[in-house]
Amino acid sequence: MKVMIDLCVVPLGVGVSLSPYIAACQKVLEEAGLKTALHSYGTNIEGEWDEVFAAVKRCHEVIHQMGAPRVTTTIKVGTRTDRLQSMEDKINSVKAKM
Amino acid sequence: MKVMIDLCVVPLGVGVSLSPYIAACQKVLEEAGLKTALHSYGTNIEGEWDEVFAAVKRCHEVIHQMGAPRVTTTIKVGTRTDRLQSMEDKINSVKAKM
Amino acid sequence: MKVMIDLCVVPLGVGVSLSPYIAACQKVLEEAGLKTALHSYGTNIEGEWDEVFAAVKRCHEVIHQMGAPRVTTTIKVGTRTDRLQSMEDKINSVKAKM
Amino acid sequence: MKVMIDLCVVPLGVGVSLSPYIAACQKVLEEAGLKTALHSYGTNIEGEWDEVFAAVKRCHEVIHQMGAPRVTTTIKVGTRTDRLQSMEDKINSVKAKM
Repeated sequence: MKVMIDLCVVPLGVGVSLSPYIAACQKVLEEAGLKTALHSYGTNIEGEWDEVFAAVKRCHEVIHQMGAPRVTTTIKVGTRTDRLQSMEDKINSVKAKM
Repeated sequence: MKVMIDLCVVPLGVGVSLSPYIAACQKVLEEAGLKTALHSYGTNIEGEWDEVFAAVKRCHEVIHQMGAPRVTTTIKVGTRTDRLQSMEDKINSVKAKM
Repeated sequence: MKVMIDLCVVPLGVGVSLSPYIAACQKVLEEAGLKTALHSYGTNIEGEWDEVFAAVKRCHEVIHQMGAPRVTTTIKVGTRTDRLQSMEDKINSVKAKM
Repeated sequence: MKVMIDLCVVPLGVGVSLSPYIAACQKVLEEAGLKTALHSYGTNIEGEWDEVFAAVKRCHEVIHQMGAPRVTTTIKVGTRTDRLQSMEDKINSVKAKM
């Protein structure tokens, strides 16, 4: 099952500068070979369900290993059976109607 | 790794009445033996990471099997390494400060 | 316009114990006279759009006043024009199908 | 109070093609003079709290006027008092650590 998610990982108990943790997650996603697009409040990720969620789990593990005692993450998850739709398709579909 | 999540599953292309789909998800979670608490905008779930996310995947599969061509889900995911904390602990911790 | 929201406020830069901040938000919501239901990963709130979002803004202000330099919040927002539906209606609607 | 949000609006009861509704929201945001960045699972928005949330309310109103009987939206909301940080700053901050 193909999935598109939006991932926003928030480590707690490490102060206000979260970028080193987000950068570590980007590396996890890259090593997993997933297609990603970073934005200002999260990361779009596209791939097979099991691979995508294995990478999400790995992000939590890596952030804890970096010293964060607590992590709270928000994920949006989209699946569809009617047709294939890439991350670019979604953006182009909106822009075509503007 | 223990996890607490908040799951809000939204089937698209099936009209405005979503409760049959939410009820089907509740059954999936129950059959998975997970501890859950239904609220008005989602379901709190507590358990081992892999079991919890296997159930989330199963929810998407079941909703598609029920005929929904598209599903968009919002998940909040919490993990912590400093201490164990149950769903009740979190509520009691807030109430103790009120 | 009536709205039902799910509010999850996360102060950053204040360590891992967030309950004093969540308790302060509960007080803000109470003083605003809003109908609320606390759960393990947020708070369901029901009311008029403007009153509900004024209270959400007040929560951010209060948390900053308590010393948190950064706040990241996740909100789910539901509106419908087809019929009135209370927080209890939504839960009962799911339970009736189980 | 400056705010950065991520907005994901989902009309229900209108089938699976949501792009006309998302395009209408983009127009609302543009007319409000807000700085935005569309991505594959939402839109980043930056501005003053009251202006940003007035536009979010207007999005719900417009989508209902277009015929959607129900709307469910997910919003992430960030505020900080320690320093100003633009949408680009957040992305650059992560990229500098990669």
